[in-house]
Formats: sequence, structure tokens, C-alpha cells
Amino acid sequence: MNEILDVIIVGAGSAGLAALREVRKYTQRFVIINDGPWGTVCARVGCMPSKVLIEAANAFQRRGTFEEFGIRGGDRLTLDIPAVLRRVRRLRDDFVASTVKTTEELGERAISGRVRLLAPDRLEVNGEELRAHKIIIATGSRPVVPASWTALGHRLLTTDTLFEQETLPARMAVVGMGPIGAEMAQALSRLGIQVVAFGGKAIAGLTDPQVIAVAADLFKKEFPLHLGEKAELSLVDEGVQVRAGNIEVVVDCVLAALGRRPNIDNLGLETLGVSLDQHGMPPVNPGTMQVADLPVFMAGDANDQAPLLHEAADEGYIAGLNAMRSHPICFTRRTPLAIVFTDPDIAVVGSRFEALDPAKIVVGEVHFDRQGRARAGQRNKGIQRLYADAVSGRLLGAEMCAPAGEHMAHLLALAIDRSLTVQQLLRLPFYHPVLEEGLRTALRALAVQLPSVNESDLSMCGAYNTEALD
Amino acid sequence: MNEILDVIIVGAGSAGLAALREVRKYTQRFVIINDGPWGTVCARVGCMPSKVLIEAANAFQRRGTFEEFGIRGGDRLTLDIPAVLRRVRRLRDDFVASTVKTTEELGERAISGRVRLLAPDRLEVNGEELRAHKIIIATGSRPVVPASWTALGHRLLTTDTLFEQETLPARMAVVGMGPIGAEMAQALSRLGIQVVAFGGKAIAGLTDPQVIAVAADLFKKEFPLHLGEKAELSLVDEGVQVRAGNIEVVVDCVLAALGRRPNIDNLGLETLGVSLDQHGMPPVNPGTMQVADLPVFMAGDANDQAPLLHEAADEGYIAGLNAMRSHPICFTRRTPLAIVFTDPDIAVVGSRFEALDPAKIVVGEVHFDRQGRARAGQRNKGIQRLYADAVSGRLLGAEMCAPAGEHMAHLLALAIDRSLTVQQLLRLPFYHPVLEEGLRTALRALAVQLPSVNESDLSMCGAYNTEALD
Repeated sequence: MNEILDVIIVGAGSAGLAALREVRKYTQRFVIINDGPWGTVCARVGCMPSKVLIEAANAFQRRGTFEEFGIRGGDRLTLDIPAVLRRVRRLRDDFVASTVKTTEELGERAISGRVRLLAPDRLEVNGEELRAHKIIIATGSRPVVPASWTALGHRLLTTDTLFEQETLPARMAVVGMGPIGAEMAQALSRLGIQVVAFGGKAIAGLTDPQVIAVAADLFKKEFPLHLGEKAELSLVDEGVQVRAGNIEVVVDCVLAALGRRPNIDNLGLETLGVSLDQHGMPPVNPGTMQVADLPVFMAGDANDQAPLLHEAADEGYIAGLNAMRSHPICFTRRTPLAIVFTDPDIAVVGSRFEALDPAKIVVGEVHFDRQGRARAGQRNKGIQRLYADAVSGRLLGAEMCAPAGEHMAHLLALAIDRSLTVQQLLRLPFYHPVLEEGLRTALRALAVQLPSVNESDLSMCGAYNTEALD
Repeated sequence: MNEILDVIIVGAGSAGLAALREVRKYTQRFVIINDGPWGTVCARVGCMPSKVLIEAANAFQRRGTFEEFGIRGGDRLTLDIPAVLRRVRRLRDDFVASTVKTTEELGERAISGRVRLLAPDRLEVNGEELRAHKIIIATGSRPVVPASWTALGHRLLTTDTLFEQETLPARMAVVGMGPIGAEMAQALSRLGIQVVAFGGKAIAGLTDPQVIAVAADLFKKEFPLHLGEKAELSLVDEGVQVRAGNIEVVVDCVLAALGRRPNIDNLGLETLGVSLDQHGMPPVNPGTMQVADLPVFMAGDANDQAPLLHEAADEGYIAGLNAMRSHPICFTRRTPLAIVFTDPDIAVVGSRFEALDPAKIVVGEVHFDRQGRARAGQRNKGIQRLYADAVSGRLLGAEMCAPAGEHMAHLLALAIDRSLTVQQLLRLPFYHPVLEEGLRTALRALAVQLPSVNESDLSMCGAYNTEALD
């Protein structure tokens, strides 16, 4: 192939496919190259299969509420774990199918193979050299697994292999309590597996100590959770021994949930002629996705900036659009939003607590233990904490482990994106009885700490509305 | 009692208590008078007990998803209806207790009795005449029951009596498919009662024919629903015969859900010296709650303007605050929001469809049947329709029968309150996988019908973001 292509997209995951969608609007002179199975991480081994597993686990867990609701026979319910996993794969296959449809239709322009960059406009794949005016690197990420752990063989699982299991063993350790670890530890425990979990000091991306404490307490009611000690694994006769501090347990297998690392090793990034950081990462502009001033773009998990599906899709879009322009557009990125699908939901919106100056903010919080609607539905646990600028009253961020947290997080993200103040948010109609009345309680707790509003605000009755019945 | 009070509050429901809270900030020279049981309609016989009943019904209903989830034994679950109703009353008593605490502490300033107005500054209660500078009327509402239906005796229930039942019969008719009828018909059906429902042409306050059609279809999969014919009831040997058009069924009892009427009959409103409308209602300013230019205010269900808890609370607040002022403040009321707690949730936000000029709007919709997260959780049914101004792109309203509708309705209410455009809403981060991605699909369907955005908007990548993976 001697022609010079307009664009080569390396990687056909969420970011690569988003880039492809833009590129195709302008040119047919492109190829997209993928190493390993086609289909996105999200659909194959990430967001989607994990959510299918979680939904089954939570549905089963709800039997614990049945006696109180007046439903009899919940104690005789059983879970068919192989059936749970079959459903995970059945839905996953369907989700994957929709992500590979596009590339299947590309014919020769979709290439399977591992890429090695040769220069900012050249790369090698399957022994062939390709040239292009622009290159988009969207090679994704993979689970972090310490080299020594590979000795555990089939007793070591990651999200790459978990959903492929025919069944699950009686005893599992989950090592790592980031978003994936927290979701899977709780879900596996709720599926009836004897789970023991190990993590660092934080949980699920939270940074507010008070929210972390509530989340940790809730998890500990469901499974043993050991935080703050490094876990060491070793094969023993009966399985895998996990040691962390004074704790020593033997389990049948371990789910490694230590995070994900970008797939940039052996990619040839050093041939781009720009300096790489200690992790081998080149400088990538988060507004344009451009690598330094090269005709090269990096999007999605590969650039290790915000390894989340919606951010990867945005980055792919930005990279694809900018690859087709002589001068890249610098995009304003969205309000940060991270959701962890535990129960209650964990979410971080806008500025994290740890990124804020405690002297410059006020904090409003609500506990859901006594919240009316939450009690009616036996979902009355968790906490939500909101952070607002102490002078302007603008909402800056929130962290929560709260029922319907995934929904309230979207509302709060909109408020933060629009730079709304606490008083403006209290204009919102809060229906009754809803979990959002808990959010209103937290907003009111902020309002009383803020400089009082003037007469013109008074006529916006939200600001002074009656106290909650919640 | 010869002193002239500052304020008399007539009615100790949600509106009256909200008024009381304001009045007490300024004066102790008040009384609050209540007829019948103390405790709000919301807590005693409305929002709260109905939600407790619905939560049990929906928890039981979810057994239909168990086989697919891999949970075995769901077909052997049974429901202990007396236990369900006991829990309804237990929680209700607790909610009521919190609403009566305030008035219990008032001593002689809380009076039980039926009021008859004598003039704008005088009324009679328990044979005694009281005078006040201001009177706040917050007498609430009661279920509509045609006079002839009282002959049905114990076979006729309303929400006043439903939650008092020790158990429920095998066959029930629900007459009326407004918000309460729709909620109760579905809940009773899900509790295992053989329900047949009768309604007008609309359902649950919806006005968009396409949303009504989806809601009606979903209900009809659960219980027979007859719309558009007036139901006639008569006592027969085996129970109550309900006839509507060609339909004729016999049930054990009937839940009348024909709406609520304000408690203004025999109140003496004619003594105020202002003209009353055909329903006997005086003119009430919705921004001030003032009756004409009198020192009299009407708040809550009593004025029949927006018989919803959060509106009643606002109106009580406005009435209480304005009663203490020489010149009333005119308040900007909140964005309309009505939620019906069926499954999926029904909600109407902002402008109703029927209030909009079809020539001036664009409509964006999403069906949830194929939505990814909804499929994972077996909640994949329903529809959401959004209405935006065809020129400005401002979101004007929404109607829906959709999973997590109650949550998305709040987000949309915020958007409408802030006069946001569709493009601005597409700046929102939509996490993956969430039900809100369905909302994004509807927003995108609006965006493509709107005048295209300019280059400066382009850098807000939301406007042009990648297509949904949902």
C-alpha cells in the first residue's frame, strides 16, 4: 500500500469508534486497526456485563426486604449462578454485536493486528508499513496485574475473565476497592459468594472522609473489608492465601481490581520525537487530544486522563474532528462525573472534596436513614455531601453514597455546568415523596451557611421555602 | 375571647402547617383550627401511605423478572396482604406523628372544630366567635364521591378508608384513572388482587396522546382497563356491579378515585363580600394567595389551584408570610411538576403537551424498550417525549411514562426553570450506562430539528457529541 491515507485510527474501542464516526464524514481514505477482539472494552468486559451482573445480584439481595414488605418465601429463593453468568454473556454478546457492526462493514479498511509506530506519519502493522497525514491512537487499557500474580493461573481473575466463567467458587477475594473493585465485591457478595475485600484508604474514587466512612460501614455490613494494607497473594493447597497486615485468608480465587493501565507499551511512542513522561506517556492536550504539535492524537483510556466511557467517546469525537482540520479546535470538556454502581450508588460530581480549599467552601449534607421515601422503599441508608463556594453560593461539587445517587449526580452535574447557586437550585420543584427531598435538605443546610439573599430573591419562594417533610 | 388575634389559620394540613411556620416567626397571637383528625392528608391518607403500599406491590411484582435474572423460587413467593397493610399504617402513624408534633405543643392555640366564616375578620368555631387581623384558609380537600355511591356502604372505598382495611378482597374495581387511580389500580393489581379499572380518556394527568397510548398499553398488560365510558355502580348479591359502555363486571368492592374536591362548602365564603365562581370559590391570586383585596388568604388544596404537596407547602408559606405584611409579595411560582408513582413512573414537567402550539414546537422522543441499562435491569419499557421551542431551542416541557421518570423529571424541571436550550442540555455529562442516556437520545432527536448552532457552540462538544451507545 503506497498511498498516503488521510487518517489511521489505532484501536476500535469506544474512543476509536467515536473518532471513526467523525472521520468518515470527511474522508474514505482511512483505516482502523484493532489488536485482539473487536468490540469495545465497555461492551465486552466493562460497563455493560458488570451492570448485568449487578442487576441480578441486587434483585437477589432485595429478598432481605421481603419479610418487612409482607412478602413470604424470600428465604427459599436460590440463585443459579451459571444462569446469571449466561445472561451476562447473552446480553454482552448483543451489546458487542452493536459495537462491531460498524467495523464489520468496513471491509479492508478494518485491519486486525498490532501496531508499532515508526514516526508521526508512519506505522507498521502485520509486517506492512502504512502512512497517513494523521494518526489517532486509541489503544485503550487493560487491567493492572502484578507480574508475580500470574503464577496464580486460573485462580486469578480480572474483569477480562470474570464474565467468562461458567460458575463462581464459594470463596473469593477482591483486591482493590476502586470503582470496579467496589462494584464487583458487593455484587459477588450479593450473589452469595463469600467475599473478602482488600483496598487502599479510599473507596470507589471517593475523597471525602465522611462519605468514605459511610460507604465503608455499609460495605462492612455485607462482607469483610480490609483497607489500608497491601495484599500479598500466594498459592496454597486449598487455593490462594491473601495476606494484608494481620489478616490472612484462604480463598478459591482472587479478582484483581487494581485499576487499568493504558495500552502504550511497545507502541513505539518514542518514535514520535517528543519527550515522554516516566510512564512513557507523551503530552496530550485535553482540549484538542493532540500530541504536542504533531499530526497525532490520543483519545480514550490510552491517554490515561479520564478512563470513563463518556469521556472516551468525547475524546474520540474531538480527536476525529480535529484530525480532519488544519487547526484543531480546543474543546471545553464536560463537568466531571463519576458514578460507581454499588447500592447505594457512589458518585463524585464536579470538584472532588480533596481538590477544594476547606476555608473557601461550605458543606451541606443529608443522611438518608430517616428520609421518608427511602424508608417507604427500604432504601434508607447513605449520605450525600454538597460543596458550595462560601462567598458566591455556587455549587462546586458533591460526593455521595446515596439511594438514586446516579440520578441526583446528573442533576447536580447540570447545576455545576450552569454555574448555579444554592439559592437557584432551591427554586427547583421537589416533588413529594422523592429521594431528591434529601438533596433539598442538603441544599438548605448549605443555604443557612451562605450570606443572606436580598429582597428580590425573596420573591423566588424556593429560597425560603418551608422545611422538608422528609 | 375578646382580643383581636393577628392571624387565624383554618386547617392544619400541609398548607396550614407551612403557614403556621411563617406566622410564628412574627407573632404568638394566632390560633390554628382543625376539623377532623389532626395530621396532614399527605401523611394520613395521601402521598405517604400510598407510596408504602406501592413499594410492597412493586417489590412483589419484581418476582416476574427473577427467572431471567437466574433467581429461582420466585413462583413460590406469596404476599401477606394484612401484613402489607399493617406496615402501611405503622409507617403512616410515624409520618403523621411528625406532622402533629407542632400543633400538639401549641396548647390552647390549637383548636379542634369546624369553622364558619362570618366576615373577612371574623369566624365562629365551637359556638365561639373569634376575630383576627388576617385569616388563612387552608381547609384542604376530600375525595369526590357521587352521592348515590354512598349506598354501597363498606363496598365503596376511597383513599380515606383504603389504608384502614385489615385485608383486601379478591376482586376490586378502581373507578378513575387520574394520578391516584392509576397508582392504586396498578399497586392493587400487583398485590395480587383481580383489578378492573375504569377511566376517562386521559391517564394520570398525561395530555400527550402518544404517552397516554404507551401508558395505557403497559397498564393493560397488567389489568383490564376501560377508558372513555362513565362507570355506573349498583349493589348486587355478590358485590358491586360496575357497568361502563358494554362492560359489565361484578367486584367485591370499588375504590373511587375520581379526584378530590376542596373543602369550602358551608365555610361561609359568601360572607367575605366578594363574588364566588360557580363552584363557590372566591378569586385567589396565585402569586400572593390573597383573596381579592381582603385580609384573607387561601392556600393548598382548598383553593383548588394545584393540589400537590409541594405546591400546598409553597402556598402555605406564601400565605403565612404575606399575612404578616402590610403589602403582600407576589411570588414567582415554581416550574410545574407532577409525578405519578406508577411503574414506569409517569411525569409531566413544565408545559403540558396540550398547552403547546404544535406549530411552534419540535418534539424529541425515546422509547426505552432497547435502552441498554434498562435492558440490564429488566426495566426496558416506556416512552419519554420532550417539547422544545422550534426557534430558540428552549426546552418547554416533557411528558413521560419511563423508568426513573421521577428522577429525570426533576432534572428537566431544573432545565426548564433555568430556561435552558437543548444544546445547553447536551453539555451535560451523561454517564454510561444510565437511563439518562435515553433522555439524551430524546434531546438529540430535538437537536437535529433545531436551527444549527454556530462555531462558538461547536467547542462545547456536547452539542456534537458522539451518538449514543444506548
